[in-house]
Amino acid sequence: MNGVLMPDFYTIRWLPEGVVSMIDQRLLPHQVVYNSYHTPEGVGEAINEMVIRGAPAIGAAAAYGLALVPWHTESEDAEEIVEQLEKAAGMLRLSRPTAVNLSWALDQILDVVHRSSWGSRAELRDLVLGEATRIAEQDVAINLALGAHGQGVIPDPAVIIHHCNTGSLAAVDYGTALGVIRLAHEKGKEVFVYVDETRPRLQGGRLTAWELQQYGVPFKVIADGASGYFMRTGRVDLCLVGADRVAANGDVANKIGTYNLAVVAHENKVPFYVAVPKSTIDMKTPSGDLIKIEERPAVEVTHVGEWQITPDDTPVGNPAFDVTPAKYISGFITEEGIVTPPYPENLKALFTETP
Amino acid sequence: MNGVLMPDFYTIRWLPEGVVSMIDQRLLPHQVVYNSYHTPEGVGEAINEMVIRGAPAIGAAAAYGLALVPWHTESEDAEEIVEQLEKAAGMLRLSRPTAVNLSWALDQILDVVHRSSWGSRAELRDLVLGEATRIAEQDVAINLALGAHGQGVIPDPAVIIHHCNTGSLAAVDYGTALGVIRLAHEKGKEVFVYVDETRPRLQGGRLTAWELQQYGVPFKVIADGASGYFMRTGRVDLCLVGADRVAANGDVANKIGTYNLAVVAHENKVPFYVAVPKSTIDMKTPSGDLIKIEERPAVEVTHVGEWQITPDDTPVGNPAFDVTPAKYISGFITEEGIVTPPYPENLKALFTETP
Repeated sequence: MNGVLMPDFYTIRWLPEGVVSMIDQRLLPHQVVYNSYHTPEGVGEAINEMVIRGAPAIGAAAAYGLALVPWHTESEDAEEIVEQLEKAAGMLRLSRPTAVNLSWALDQILDVVHRSSWGSRAELRDLVLGEATRIAEQDVAINLALGAHGQGVIPDPAVIIHHCNTGSLAAVDYGTALGVIRLAHEKGKEVFVYVDETRPRLQGGRLTAWELQQYGVPFKVIADGASGYFMRTGRVDLCLVGADRVAANGDVANKIGTYNLAVVAHENKVPFYVAVPKSTIDMKTPSGDLIKIEERPAVEVTHVGEWQITPDDTPVGNPAFDVTPAKYISGFITEEGIVTPPYPENLKALFTETP
Repeated sequence: MNGVLMPDFYTIRWLPEGVVSMIDQRLLPHQVVYNSYHTPEGVGEAINEMVIRGAPAIGAAAAYGLALVPWHTESEDAEEIVEQLEKAAGMLRLSRPTAVNLSWALDQILDVVHRSSWGSRAELRDLVLGEATRIAEQDVAINLALGAHGQGVIPDPAVIIHHCNTGSLAAVDYGTALGVIRLAHEKGKEVFVYVDETRPRLQGGRLTAWELQQYGVPFKVIADGASGYFMRTGRVDLCLVGADRVAANGDVANKIGTYNLAVVAHENKVPFYVAVPKSTIDMKTPSGDLIKIEERPAVEVTHVGEWQITPDDTPVGNPAFDVTPAKYISGFITEEGIVTPPYPENLKALFTETP
């Protein structure tokens, strides 16, 4: 039941020569390819084109992307380098509009740059890389803490429906919802996962299936429309998802299809948990309906890989995310514990009380 | 707004030389290929492999498949030919387990064979082909009547979510739910359709999109998980689907994903209508939970066309249909009018009252 769970891949790493290395998630599970990036523009494109995706992972990617600026700049002028950093942060911020971790990570770094005293480019380089590394390492520690708290909602045995990918590939390691599942399996719980394939980009069928195979967790991939069938006709103990942004009232922006899953779970009295680091909770956004939803290219719906599905010139609606109102959510699993309703009060307390 | 709507294709036809011709729906929309079948076994395989699909269409296919028996048999012995017919009917009945039209069409033909007096193989041949032709022609007439009644639930303008394919390709012509939409467009109503792509076999993205393009009805293809997003954030007037079998209590077996759509529609107070010919209503099945649900091959989920999505050896759950309880259904559109709750009484009345 235990076995070696250390996977034989990484999502993102800083290489000592000043390179950001990422596994190309567009090519998984068929090819395992690591791309190298030397510029923040390259990292921004990688985020936009979803070489890397998942809220915590793109936070770390943006942070390392910023770290490339003082590493490779030809300027030795402090003010100029800070300007370059701010310009790069502005560009990176636009690479994906919905996930809050991206802005959060950029703000952390800019804040440190402005608050700290440093004299040379070398000092600034170390400062920014140090902060980016701290963000990445903190992500792993947070996910482990979140995973430990999550055990409280995972029975043994457990049948779980999971949407999108929230595993190591969506984070620096472990991930959020899938980290909870991986830790349950590591602890010897008998866990079975129905993996929503998660159209249009199939993060479930491609990435979550690939991760679960590596961890040895038993699963079945299902079409997104089949989740209700399994809830109605068989045993499903809970649904477990991540989030790209949580509003202060507990509304959740997450991968398209999450709202349908949550409504059907609610109707079937299946608990619906959202696993998120605190950095995904955006207390500045009062309600989910204020979250900007990214509309992505039609080709994601009209094609799968190189295979064209639809007739030529087919018009498409392709929102990347949807908003699930707080009333459908049984609880949030965070690195500081489980948050249950009422969310406006209890989420606020996360940020005001000493843990 | 009107325009010529006669599409430039057919779903199924009997050719005078004793051949059943069907458009190969597995190849649409990329190739328009008609396959020829000379044996009921060939037709059975075509149904099983979904060359042809859609409850009314496979009813007609099974009927024409039976008509091939007395056409091509080498026997002149009446009793022997009837045995061959019954054997072929048994085989065809197993080609898809869920749609009731298939058994219904086969029973119609066997009934006529047993009730009628005929002396020679030639007479039997004409009798069976006549009955099969009647079933096919009646399907078109029924769909036109159903489409006319359906206008009562289509406002002008109308934004409609549609699941799977229920058009001409799912029938002999016009189809059920999509026939209602096509007729609304023909009558000059301003209709817009969100087309659920309908994983795993993508009947929406492949077939419904192709049909709507030909009729000139504006639409957008969406991932199945996105339907709730459009209901929550924009205007959707109704959902409109077909069915493979309706139980006597009003429960509906239809393409996987229908249940999720119905629950989300219910939650958003979006009316949910099911368009069915009476032949799809199975008064012998008291409840939807008694309907056998076909589990189809894993390859439908693991691959799209020739493109492999998942890692090798990915386990899959692939129910072809789900059951939507009657409480989520606003009404049934039939060739004899709209049936509203209470369904046990009002569906029964369809079969006992003179229209």
